[in-house]
Amino acid sequence: MQERLFTGCTAATMAGGAPYGLVEDAAIVARGDAVAWVGARTDLPEDFSTLEAVDLQGALVTPALIECHSHLVFGGDRAAEFAMRLGGASYEEIARAGGGIRSTVAATREASDEDLLASALRRVDDLLADGVAVIEVKSGYGLSVEQEMRMLRVARQIEQHRPVRIMTTWLAAHALPPEYAERSDDYIEEVVIAGLRQAKAEGLVDAVDGFCENIGFTPAQVRRVFEVARELGLPVKLHAEQLSDLKGAVLASEFDALSADHLEYLAPEDAVHMAKSGTVAVLLPGAYFTLRETQLPPIDALRGAGVRMAVATDANPGSSPMSSLRLAMGMACTLFRLTPEEALAGATRNAAAALGLSGEYGSIEPGKRAELAVWDAGHPDFLSYWLGGNLLRGRIIDGEFNER
Amino acid sequence: MQERLFTGCTAATMAGGAPYGLVEDAAIVARGDAVAWVGARTDLPEDFSTLEAVDLQGALVTPALIECHSHLVFGGDRAAEFAMRLGGASYEEIARAGGGIRSTVAATREASDEDLLASALRRVDDLLADGVAVIEVKSGYGLSVEQEMRMLRVARQIEQHRPVRIMTTWLAAHALPPEYAERSDDYIEEVVIAGLRQAKAEGLVDAVDGFCENIGFTPAQVRRVFEVARELGLPVKLHAEQLSDLKGAVLASEFDALSADHLEYLAPEDAVHMAKSGTVAVLLPGAYFTLRETQLPPIDALRGAGVRMAVATDANPGSSPMSSLRLAMGMACTLFRLTPEEALAGATRNAAAALGLSGEYGSIEPGKRAELAVWDAGHPDFLSYWLGGNLLRGRIIDGEFNER
Ligand SMILES: [Zn+2]
Ligand SMILES: [Zn+2]
Repeated sequence: MQERLFTGCTAATMAGGAPYGLVEDAAIVARGDAVAWVGARTDLPEDFSTLEAVDLQGALVTPALIECHSHLVFGGDRAAEFAMRLGGASYEEIARAGGGIRSTVAATREASDEDLLASALRRVDDLLADGVAVIEVKSGYGLSVEQEMRMLRVARQIEQHRPVRIMTTWLAAHALPPEYAERSDDYIEEVVIAGLRQAKAEGLVDAVDGFCENIGFTPAQVRRVFEVARELGLPVKLHAEQLSDLKGAVLASEFDALSADHLEYLAPEDAVHMAKSGTVAVLLPGAYFTLRETQLPPIDALRGAGVRMAVATDANPGSSPMSSLRLAMGMACTLFRLTPEEALAGATRNAAAALGLSGEYGSIEPGKRAELAVWDAGHPDFLSYWLGGNLLRGRIIDGEFNER
Repeated sequence: MQERLFTGCTAATMAGGAPYGLVEDAAIVARGDAVAWVGARTDLPEDFSTLEAVDLQGALVTPALIECHSHLVFGGDRAAEFAMRLGGASYEEIARAGGGIRSTVAATREASDEDLLASALRRVDDLLADGVAVIEVKSGYGLSVEQEMRMLRVARQIEQHRPVRIMTTWLAAHALPPEYAERSDDYIEEVVIAGLRQAKAEGLVDAVDGFCENIGFTPAQVRRVFEVARELGLPVKLHAEQLSDLKGAVLASEFDALSADHLEYLAPEDAVHMAKSGTVAVLLPGAYFTLRETQLPPIDALRGAGVRMAVATDANPGSSPMSSLRLAMGMACTLFRLTPEEALAGATRNAAAALGLSGEYGSIEPGKRAELAVWDAGHPDFLSYWLGGNLLRGRIIDGEFNER
């Protein structure tokens, strides 16, 4: 297997030890698509010392970033609705003008597969420009068995067009389509669960998610979906406590969920449930920002309980129209008071955990995938500190350096 | 003179008429470096109809963006200080560790001209990626006659390396250097004013600015500086009402200032002074965001009085570490409730006014510079709506299309 040696870099391994697992003047050896060795260049084992080194010229190397919560396959956009709202239109007026999630459902249903893919690829490219190697993509704008499956088929197609790994999440329990008005239990059975079984059989589903909220689905409905997920051997995650405290995170923890996401209204004392089940807290500051939320997620309680915190874009056309994971990291620091180290862990190690990929991604360690981000930055603090701009010099993909 | 015809685009002319001055299926003719004609393609005059058209393939065309408030020439960065603060360090601890503006002054003084220029060019490139054609750059981290002049010389050099116009602003009255502690009046005379005369003589100054604040300089000191600026025939602008209401904007208006900037603590009733003098309100939501300010600038009062509002990044290493003007536009919408149209006017027409360049930039109109931004977006609302990502398809510079 091909071996490659990278030197002339600072490595933020995120693998423990020093803050950021930082190694100055580091050497990294990739064997095939895996990391074989990482450490101080002066400690490089004899075996590797004959390899010709790729000099990264003073770059900072981190694990590739992991986007663990996105809705980036969708039709249309909601820019006009954004403008209407800022122009003073009421929610009712916007709804009458066809706004809100329904407009995205309609636009998604109407879009061809090709258009859905093309628009998703633009957002994927934005994420790749932030050094992302894995993207979770949720369904949830089709809201019928066939349309939800189509969304995940399109999501899977992304891998054929870009050097990225896609993890698909079944989120039919995102909103109630008009044809099921007043019949949400029927929707859960006929679309969410029946569709899940079909989608699973077709190999389209990596995880199952729901929107547990007064304006979404009840904990009892989510439980019903989670029971089927468990039966099918699929991990679960949940949009929980974004707008109110329905104890969604406690429910998710009961099912050993990979993650509970948003969490602004999580009761601090419930963090312990998440810690016990190893459920990751996925923080989504883009939605907090866009909705001008003022209720902060209970960061201190999460920290205190030892809950792993991830950070994601929540990329979606309504409540978080953004496609920069590094911007989400910056917002997590300024708005949620995460440290830059927590923000980077949130977009690497803990994001990998939120996708059940801890064994492969999230840190630079022997045995893990040689998927790395190479930055024009002197120190990893910089990645969260500076907003905007192109800091990525290139990516190491399957052990090979690709300049941007 | 060479004539060029652009078609296949939607033009947001920002020149009045429809919202955004929007023209669907537009044609734009450049003659040399100026716009000769813009309108609906079907109305294209006979004279131009024989020109071979450059097909912009459905792109959105806007005036090139104008960055009207930046501090983007500086040494070092403050990422470590950002991390310390988030890690719980007090302001005193940060000051003891050499943090704050003093650290940037020290790093700027120590940096070579080459290093200052190289780091500035990175931030310039970020702005160019947002379609920016003009950047205002302030001094203010040198704080001695020679060092302030050096900052502006470096700023001027940017034009030799990038296709961008630089407007320089003398901001020696930014902070008091340690060698003048307790002697701020002496600093005003010996550095701010004496340096201004020298810098003006060397042709380094397009405008004069100051930081009017309890932690900056008093209105009386600013008035002294403005009197000299007037004597030298230089326009003025002012950092005003960012942290408290010292009536800086009123003072600025008295001197017919191009702009008063920040304005979170502007008394609503003072907007009328700005309107009378035509002083532009430069809004800096990046600083508001970074400082977690909660006092909003009096947008309704500014609107009501007919004050033109501009939007800028305030790019600087402390209170606004950002280099995306489009992100500033998005923040101006979500945080300050500007409409997307106001945000785009703020980064084009009104930003040009804030630099005294209304005759040349800020709208697509016959006679103005053919400096345009070509976007991958269906509607100009999208530019403020979507955060992150690379929306720019290219720029028209001096009448010529340059793909990114
Ligand atoms: Zn979501
Ligand atoms: Zn400033």
